[in-house]
Amino acid sequence: MLSDFENYLKLQTGLPDDAIQTVSGMAELRTLSRNEQLLTAGDICRHKVFVIYGLLRTFSTGTNGNEHILQFSPENTWTLDVESYDKQIPSLVTIEAIEPSEVLLWQRDNFNKILHDFPLLRQFSEQLIARNVHYSRQRIIMSLGATPEEKYEDFVRTFPDYLNRLPLRMIAGYLGISVKTLTRLRHAQLHR
Amino acid sequence: MLSDFENYLKLQTGLPDDAIQTVSGMAELRTLSRNEQLLTAGDICRHKVFVIYGLLRTFSTGTNGNEHILQFSPENTWTLDVESYDKQIPSLVTIEAIEPSEVLLWQRDNFNKILHDFPLLRQFSEQLIARNVHYSRQRIIMSLGATPEEKYEDFVRTFPDYLNRLPLRMIAGYLGISVKTLTRLRHAQLHR
Repeated sequence: MLSDFENYLKLQTGLPDDAIQTVSGMAELRTLSRNEQLLTAGDICRHKVFVIYGLLRTFSTGTNGNEHILQFSPENTWTLDVESYDKQIPSLVTIEAIEPSEVLLWQRDNFNKILHDFPLLRQFSEQLIARNVHYSRQRIIMSLGATPEEKYEDFVRTFPDYLNRLPLRMIAGYLGISVKTLTRLRHAQLHR
Repeated sequence: MLSDFENYLKLQTGLPDDAIQTVSGMAELRTLSRNEQLLTAGDICRHKVFVIYGLLRTFSTGTNGNEHILQFSPENTWTLDVESYDKQIPSLVTIEAIEPSEVLLWQRDNFNKILHDFPLLRQFSEQLIARNVHYSRQRIIMSLGATPEEKYEDFVRTFPDYLNRLPLRMIAGYLGISVKTLTRLRHAQLHR
């Protein structure tokens, strides 16, 4: 019987079952407690990560101690620090579990091998990169021009499932606004 | 004799001369006057673009009429609206010449064909995408946490060659700060 990850991969890539099992057989399973770090800023990102269940965040810490959140990674998504992984240089960001989570980890050499061996996986991986590029582009445009209201509304629209799983300070850290501003926005929205 | 673009491509990819000539033979040459648009928001981005000389900018216009600048594209760089090009949907951004420019254009089908035919070109293309992903990530972190001073200093460090070629309002539109703030920053820097 296929695991949740294997079903996900089959659905997304159309790979045959034996290839799916080769891919999942190369992964290491790891459970994370709440607040446990999977990658610590300064370390090298050596794994491609798939989240089976739970919720992770990727953040850097500003000079004032504020968290700048680059990404939330819920179940059925992938994560890593792409620059550290690609160049094998120290990561500028930390990846940490917001909720108790379970993840699959692939070592970089192994993942490169399966990307090479399975063109359907490679194609899917390129789609994920493209989606990421599009979303980053959108986020940069928002960061340049949108008001805090627009940023929050966009967040609610894009990630309706996260809202109840995240403390306010993390939503604020993702939007680049203060918790005070965020509280005011939510209050105004509730009364509309 | 190889053109400037052909020399660039040879140096970057290591492709043999006949492949280089196949690639450049598929491109259409176009000159742009100052302020001429290569892509207009609402249109579909149908070409991969290489800048031979000149300088282009990619921007969206906010509801208040402000320009939010996503990218500057000087000589020897590539540009397009990646989401519009990938999905063949209307572009949210405009690409316009800041200086009189000369560009090479490849139609999407043709470019996909040469990416398929020449693995060295594909590999180079993936490196460019990765560089773009790393830079976007960096820019998002900056947008969340950096002060206007830090943003400006990062811009000066990253693009020393642009400074004298860009009107202040465009640098401000790239950094997401007002022209007034930018003028104050530059003044303060000159007096240090």
